[in-house]
Amino acid sequence: MNTRLRQDADKITEYAINAVLPGEAVRRALINTDLGESVYIVAVGKAGFSMAKAAAELVSYKKGIVITKYGHVNGKIRDFECFEAGHPVPDDNGVYATGKVLELTEGLTENDTVLFLLSGGGSALFEKPLVSLEELQDITKQLLASGADINEINTIRKRLSGVKGGRFADKVYPAKIFSIILSDIVGDPLDMIASGPTVADTSTTGMALDIIQRYGITLSREAKMLMDTETPKEVTNSENQVIGSVRELCNAAAVCCKELGYETVFLSDSVCAEAREVGSMLGAIAQTHAGDGRKLAYILGGETVVHIKGTGMGGRNQEIACGAAGGISGLENTAVFSVGSDGTDGPTDAAGGYVDSDTLNTLDKMKVSFEEMFDNNDSYHILEKCGGLIKTGPTGTNVNDFSVVLIDRG
Amino acid sequence: MNTRLRQDADKITEYAINAVLPGEAVRRALINTDLGESVYIVAVGKAGFSMAKAAAELVSYKKGIVITKYGHVNGKIRDFECFEAGHPVPDDNGVYATGKVLELTEGLTENDTVLFLLSGGGSALFEKPLVSLEELQDITKQLLASGADINEINTIRKRLSGVKGGRFADKVYPAKIFSIILSDIVGDPLDMIASGPTVADTSTTGMALDIIQRYGITLSREAKMLMDTETPKEVTNSENQVIGSVRELCNAAAVCCKELGYETVFLSDSVCAEAREVGSMLGAIAQTHAGDGRKLAYILGGETVVHIKGTGMGGRNQEIACGAAGGISGLENTAVFSVGSDGTDGPTDAAGGYVDSDTLNTLDKMKVSFEEMFDNNDSYHILEKCGGLIKTGPTGTNVNDFSVVLIDRG
Repeated sequence: MNTRLRQDADKITEYAINAVLPGEAVRRALINTDLGESVYIVAVGKAGFSMAKAAAELVSYKKGIVITKYGHVNGKIRDFECFEAGHPVPDDNGVYATGKVLELTEGLTENDTVLFLLSGGGSALFEKPLVSLEELQDITKQLLASGADINEINTIRKRLSGVKGGRFADKVYPAKIFSIILSDIVGDPLDMIASGPTVADTSTTGMALDIIQRYGITLSREAKMLMDTETPKEVTNSENQVIGSVRELCNAAAVCCKELGYETVFLSDSVCAEAREVGSMLGAIAQTHAGDGRKLAYILGGETVVHIKGTGMGGRNQEIACGAAGGISGLENTAVFSVGSDGTDGPTDAAGGYVDSDTLNTLDKMKVSFEEMFDNNDSYHILEKCGGLIKTGPTGTNVNDFSVVLIDRG
Repeated sequence: MNTRLRQDADKITEYAINAVLPGEAVRRALINTDLGESVYIVAVGKAGFSMAKAAAELVSYKKGIVITKYGHVNGKIRDFECFEAGHPVPDDNGVYATGKVLELTEGLTENDTVLFLLSGGGSALFEKPLVSLEELQDITKQLLASGADINEINTIRKRLSGVKGGRFADKVYPAKIFSIILSDIVGDPLDMIASGPTVADTSTTGMALDIIQRYGITLSREAKMLMDTETPKEVTNSENQVIGSVRELCNAAAVCCKELGYETVFLSDSVCAEAREVGSMLGAIAQTHAGDGRKLAYILGGETVVHIKGTGMGGRNQEIACGAAGGISGLENTAVFSVGSDGTDGPTDAAGGYVDSDTLNTLDKMKVSFEEMFDNNDSYHILEKCGGLIKTGPTGTNVNDFSVVLIDRG
């Protein structure tokens, strides 16, 4: 392994993630905001705990609830109930905690304000299913495996839910909702982040039926009828502010690359192509410029997809890294790495993956069949074998992923 | 359609292709080369006719043969026999014409030189199959549909052939061969271009068996035995010179973009990822920079692949264009186009495809289901409906493909 490039990758990762941690961003959003006398705080999502904690220090509130992913409650907050629940597939705990939120907000008046702190993962964590939980879980699993993108998945989720697609805002009415949203969807479409509990829905029944058909999703008669039921197209009691985004993540990575002496090219913050193909392209970019005699970094961000074919373990970012390994194999002083800002790429304990010119060679020497393992979507174990896993632990934020090509002069 | 961007796309296409036309390149290669007194010219590939024509004007030769694709013989050349044959699947005419070449070169001595002009398509056009032609055709079709890349396909082709993988040079010995090679493979691996008739083979039987297994190719017992037969690993009577390449194609496109006022970013000349995913990434790049207020062009080249799932008509470049359509839909003054330098993208009469911000909207108005057609790999008919086909006619050259993102200030 190229230890200098690996060190740079770790530095860039740390710098970029620190720049989008939710606490600081929530503080900036609240500093000049008047929420009124009677405030309730509801924090939902992977970053729920740290967002709630930051808000609780700044806002005078009556009660609060956090719903976050397992392992993400990290202490206590005064007058808060904190729940952990299933993600990405919703479970009983999420449904129970969502019930608690609806109890808390029931009967509020126009003099009350709900400060709603939303982050990625909210789609699964904040849920009052209109079908049985079993069917909701089944449909979610079908969608996740189908290759449908996150916007498509959420279009379906909204229609199966009593709180998504603006329906939560409807339920809270006449109380006001002020939402601070840590965006985890490329382009920050407000009605799609966590399936937009407080935002008028822009997706339609027509789109939902189209998605069901295209990906061959199996539905009960009950669920089919819900596909045909329209969501709120107007929401009057809600104000939404987006903080943090994949653009900020990429910008921070670029700043760090420049500080490390790389000429930096920012390609995109809205990549949603197949992860391994994105990796292949990054490898091709590295291949073309490795001989330029310049110190170069190419950066892109987004939320790629993985069409799972095998039974291995991995995540989008680990697939991107592995997808680049072939293209940069044998080049001098070249690396590609990719990181999920939440620190948990797919169902793994790694944030992402790092490969460089030596990766395939190292695996070859260990008699590891890269091709076979990668065909089996086993990017985690490929990278584990060659020291290519990037581990940050859960970060408490979630603004999607960034990937970097590093080319050193040598 | 954005007529200004479309005009720019057409200008860039014309400029880039003109820069890699074979005649001029052959002239440059021959100008200081001494081939001796007794020269025979053999030109094989899609560019065979124009390469032969240029050489015939410069070299004193005894006889010549051209083998090219149907429709590519464009007149007569003195003392030449010109054959047209099947591509990408070899046919009887190709086998017959190859026999004529072997007759011509049989019995040559060390005082003779074969000027061998090679271009893309040579793998199919220059063939003396060691299995039945029917099986060779069947295996070729299996490989083309499997998603195997061109290097993998050629590794198999070499072992089924009496002239590939250095075997033609072996047959011509003790006469010398001077090869001028118009490269159509990313990175210009000499033994892979047209499956390397005059070059020691770097692929091995182990690799061949691996490919057969990975893509599940069905072989007869005879063909299986050939997989296990090694190709020449040393060739002493051959000298090879590469002219033209995808890098030159991309450079020329970049020159033209700059002349048209675009700040130009050259990303890569070695992209070999899935075509529609490359398109998706180009769309994402456009999406990110469309609001920058600058006039920008991003250029990449290579040879992408298409894993065919549907029954529609199209090609790599048309898939790239369609893959970008979603990402740039509704943006102002943004276009993506992709062109095969040979002018025939896939089995179509188009060189490639062009999409811009209006494309999906136009199709919507015509009640055309873009998603459905694209799922069916019907990129040709998608683009045909919205005026997005780029047609140059056969160009007589073949140095792979280039793709461009154009962003205008508006």
